[in-house]
Amino acid sequence: MGCPEALLHCTMHCHRALFKRGLPRCSSMYSQLQPDVQTYHSLPPVPYKCYYHQLQAWRRPFHVAATCRSREVEFTSMQYGVQRLAFASITKEDLKFFEHLLPGRVVTDPDVLEASNVDWMRTLRGHSQTLLRPRSTEEISQILRYCYNRNLAVNPQGGNTGLVGGSVPVFDEIIVSTAQMNNIMSFNKNTGALICQAGCILENLNNYLAEQDFIMPLDLGSKGSCHIGGNVATNAGGLRLLRYGSLRGTVLGLEVVLADGTVLNCLTSLRKDNTGYDLKQLFIGSEGTLGIITAVSILCPRKPASVNVVLLGCDGFDKVLDIFKESKGMLGEILSAFEFMDYGCRELVSEHLKLTNPLREAPFYVLIETSGSNSDHDQEKLSCFVEKVMSSGLVTDGTIATEENKIKALWALRECVAEALVHDGYTYKYDISLPLEKIYDIVIDMRRRLGKRAKRVVGYGHLGDGNLHLNVVSQAQDQQLLNNIEPYLYEWTAQYCGSISAEHGLGFKKKDLIYFSKPRVAVQIMQQIKAILDPKGILNPYKTLPSSTQ
Amino acid sequence: MGCPEALLHCTMHCHRALFKRGLPRCSSMYSQLQPDVQTYHSLPPVPYKCYYHQLQAWRRPFHVAATCRSREVEFTSMQYGVQRLAFASITKEDLKFFEHLLPGRVVTDPDVLEASNVDWMRTLRGHSQTLLRPRSTEEISQILRYCYNRNLAVNPQGGNTGLVGGSVPVFDEIIVSTAQMNNIMSFNKNTGALICQAGCILENLNNYLAEQDFIMPLDLGSKGSCHIGGNVATNAGGLRLLRYGSLRGTVLGLEVVLADGTVLNCLTSLRKDNTGYDLKQLFIGSEGTLGIITAVSILCPRKPASVNVVLLGCDGFDKVLDIFKESKGMLGEILSAFEFMDYGCRELVSEHLKLTNPLREAPFYVLIETSGSNSDHDQEKLSCFVEKVMSSGLVTDGTIATEENKIKALWALRECVAEALVHDGYTYKYDISLPLEKIYDIVIDMRRRLGKRAKRVVGYGHLGDGNLHLNVVSQAQDQQLLNNIEPYLYEWTAQYCGSISAEHGLGFKKKDLIYFSKPRVAVQIMQQIKAILDPKGILNPYKTLPSSTQ
Repeated sequence: MGCPEALLHCTMHCHRALFKRGLPRCSSMYSQLQPDVQTYHSLPPVPYKCYYHQLQAWRRPFHVAATCRSREVEFTSMQYGVQRLAFASITKEDLKFFEHLLPGRVVTDPDVLEASNVDWMRTLRGHSQTLLRPRSTEEISQILRYCYNRNLAVNPQGGNTGLVGGSVPVFDEIIVSTAQMNNIMSFNKNTGALICQAGCILENLNNYLAEQDFIMPLDLGSKGSCHIGGNVATNAGGLRLLRYGSLRGTVLGLEVVLADGTVLNCLTSLRKDNTGYDLKQLFIGSEGTLGIITAVSILCPRKPASVNVVLLGCDGFDKVLDIFKESKGMLGEILSAFEFMDYGCRELVSEHLKLTNPLREAPFYVLIETSGSNSDHDQEKLSCFVEKVMSSGLVTDGTIATEENKIKALWALRECVAEALVHDGYTYKYDISLPLEKIYDIVIDMRRRLGKRAKRVVGYGHLGDGNLHLNVVSQAQDQQLLNNIEPYLYEWTAQYCGSISAEHGLGFKKKDLIYFSKPRVAVQIMQQIKAILDPKGILNPYKTLPSSTQ
Repeated sequence: MGCPEALLHCTMHCHRALFKRGLPRCSSMYSQLQPDVQTYHSLPPVPYKCYYHQLQAWRRPFHVAATCRSREVEFTSMQYGVQRLAFASITKEDLKFFEHLLPGRVVTDPDVLEASNVDWMRTLRGHSQTLLRPRSTEEISQILRYCYNRNLAVNPQGGNTGLVGGSVPVFDEIIVSTAQMNNIMSFNKNTGALICQAGCILENLNNYLAEQDFIMPLDLGSKGSCHIGGNVATNAGGLRLLRYGSLRGTVLGLEVVLADGTVLNCLTSLRKDNTGYDLKQLFIGSEGTLGIITAVSILCPRKPASVNVVLLGCDGFDKVLDIFKESKGMLGEILSAFEFMDYGCRELVSEHLKLTNPLREAPFYVLIETSGSNSDHDQEKLSCFVEKVMSSGLVTDGTIATEENKIKALWALRECVAEALVHDGYTYKYDISLPLEKIYDIVIDMRRRLGKRAKRVVGYGHLGDGNLHLNVVSQAQDQQLLNNIEPYLYEWTAQYCGSISAEHGLGFKKKDLIYFSKPRVAVQIMQQIKAILDPKGILNPYKTLPSSTQ
């Protein structure tokens, strides 16, 4: 199950297994094309079809990128034909100031800068000449105050594991890295509140907490590289969302430096504090465009004493939904993951990775994980649940894993689907959120629509979070196939009040696709908020918000 | 345990019992005085002491109000000497427009208007002459578009159960009630996502869900009156926060009408949707000052099959904290409440309400509630936990309740403390959030500081949420005693990074106290956001944000 080069095209969804070694997760080029779609518009919705066609120019670079793995990554500005905004350029005087402020922590060596100029997927490349490594909030404040006065653009950077180009410069933005801001400031064992600097690596935090019998409320494939500040800035979802909820609920407080160097301190650890507007929420998911997160206060749960997994086969998607409903009732408070995959996925992992299916063949498979404080209770609940769903005919076959090795083997069946797809052909990948009752209809619909032109159309995903990974495989790159998928898929998703970008954010690659996802009025308000907090637009320019208004 | 008039002074903390009949919860006049305090300021903090003295003028009305229960409520504008802002006044032409838009749903009868002009605590009184009862988002949009063009001020109103005067007009603002917007739009049994109009009463929603084996993720004393839109607008906390988290995590989507009538639709039901800034968070807790919430999408948990309660006695506050830590480990996923009270509280309920203590006398008592999906498992976990804390010497005595009557009896010991205080004398009440390790120090400190001048200083509260209710009893109103408590208490709380207003919001009464709680820069950003979304300031004027800048 090796990853890197060979897997540059695979989605992030195989990566619990792949990235145990701390490698950042990967994602399809094609998934970057997917705008997030939101409907239910009371105002006239954006005409998706027309809008989509305006965006055709954006499609090329993603697809081209897929073929240029072995060569130098082309400059983003050239790939996308972006115009540099009227920021100042860095001078010797500026460098002198930074050297004085951060002695020995100003990087100008192009070779060292390369890793920070290029995104992890090696699809984008900025040409920043300066990387700064502050250690404190005060230093970041001074950097931004200086840059603001000088009109120098800034690119905040955490672990640089983002999938949409939010963490690398487009032109010569000064990279401000949080890598040396990695101190844990406090941990309260009574409340589970952890306060740390933004540059702490997620896995390090989790290891620190594990020693104290706690865990982080989020877990990502890229945990070995990503920074908690970046996780918050991108509102990372990950593997524990079903159980512990999103960062919007678990982040208790933030410290943020605004564009002009002002420190906005909302770093409380209180569960209840209800005065005025909750400004910290603006920075969660704003991808460094509104301020640089310098410290995070987050609520951490106790480490579960017991983890179990069950794999079930069933003969219809309606039964998958019934099993999910049943699991919420019978497993309730110990349910920690609910994943599904269709028969095609199962075929793929057998065919290409020789993984053995422990169950009889079935049109759908469901993987359920429980985490709890008492292993006897959890296993009993899981057994009762399995008995119930089997006796009621929802399930055709099932197996429970309580030992670590068997748990890993069952997870592999689900997690390796993306890897198996890489071996199957040229894959068009989509990462969609949809209402559960509609989530598999699009797979059936797409299969019918594409007919024999597609080698395979499969669906799997985090059902518990409403996430579908739709994959269309063809023998080779096929423009006509792509034209049959898009924009049809986006329109379909919009029609059923779905969303596409569940957790990747907008970054550089998706920023101009925002209108697929958000109503015009929402984008206008976002632009006004950006103008309040960063009036000169120096923070992570060319990201998140569209370059033009509609 | 009757409530209303006699209990106007009691805090909201007795109210699980008191408001089973659907009465809104009550609160101390004095608790309204408490500003929320936030420290950790990187910028120079507001000088609390100086600021406090500027605010002395605000203290009088709260205290006077405590003695005027039986007479007419004085107009807020006169009590507080507020200047009316330059909004237009309603004309016959305006009424004609509204009558045409909302036939039979325009109220101008002063007697009918009285209930909407006066807050539930009967401490504030506006003189609005018009109440509108729209039934749809489109009607609210038309109302606001008209008011915006005419420069007419608007007071959104849900169940009018707020404690800080956020829900009643100060002058002649047009009251826009959500009472007739009470349709449940959809409920998805697979995901637990409920979508409903903003005027649905919380208890009705809970009853509707109970039939389908679900519950609302929040529960309040005022559930019989309060509207879900108001709950979201005030970011209500309540009794289920420890288990299900705050509305920031459970609200999936909102539909909001902005000041100029624009409908901002963020009414998705998706758990993952990561594009741009999460605008709905701005409206959660903004008290109707940024827009009128017209519909809510909220994630609802399954109804627990089993509820148990244990009452424990212990001989030190350090042991209370150890028990809490132990409960999080051993009860983990089933822990749903962790309350504490000191010996003084126990004395009060025995003395004034003749409630029997089932345990031996102890300096501290802890009440723990569990909710889970399997009663055998839950009871076994609770028994093991009790055995552990008793055998390890953390607890001196304990009792478990698994039957409804006994559960109620144990809850009564904790919930009736506020009622008992009413019988004990004139009570100065404070509702503080503090870091757990400091939460009881202020009670000891205050007891020492006030000496014999105070009849009694007691502490109790929702320890699991970090909430302390500090109560100082004297024989009668005592200005010198009050001067010894305030601003000392606020400064003390600020020093230890605490907050005072855990869930009441700022509304009218606390808006000018905001600087005790938030740094200047945060308030400035809030004011800028208000200016974007409501440039004429017509939405709930005189609320939430301070009238002057610092």
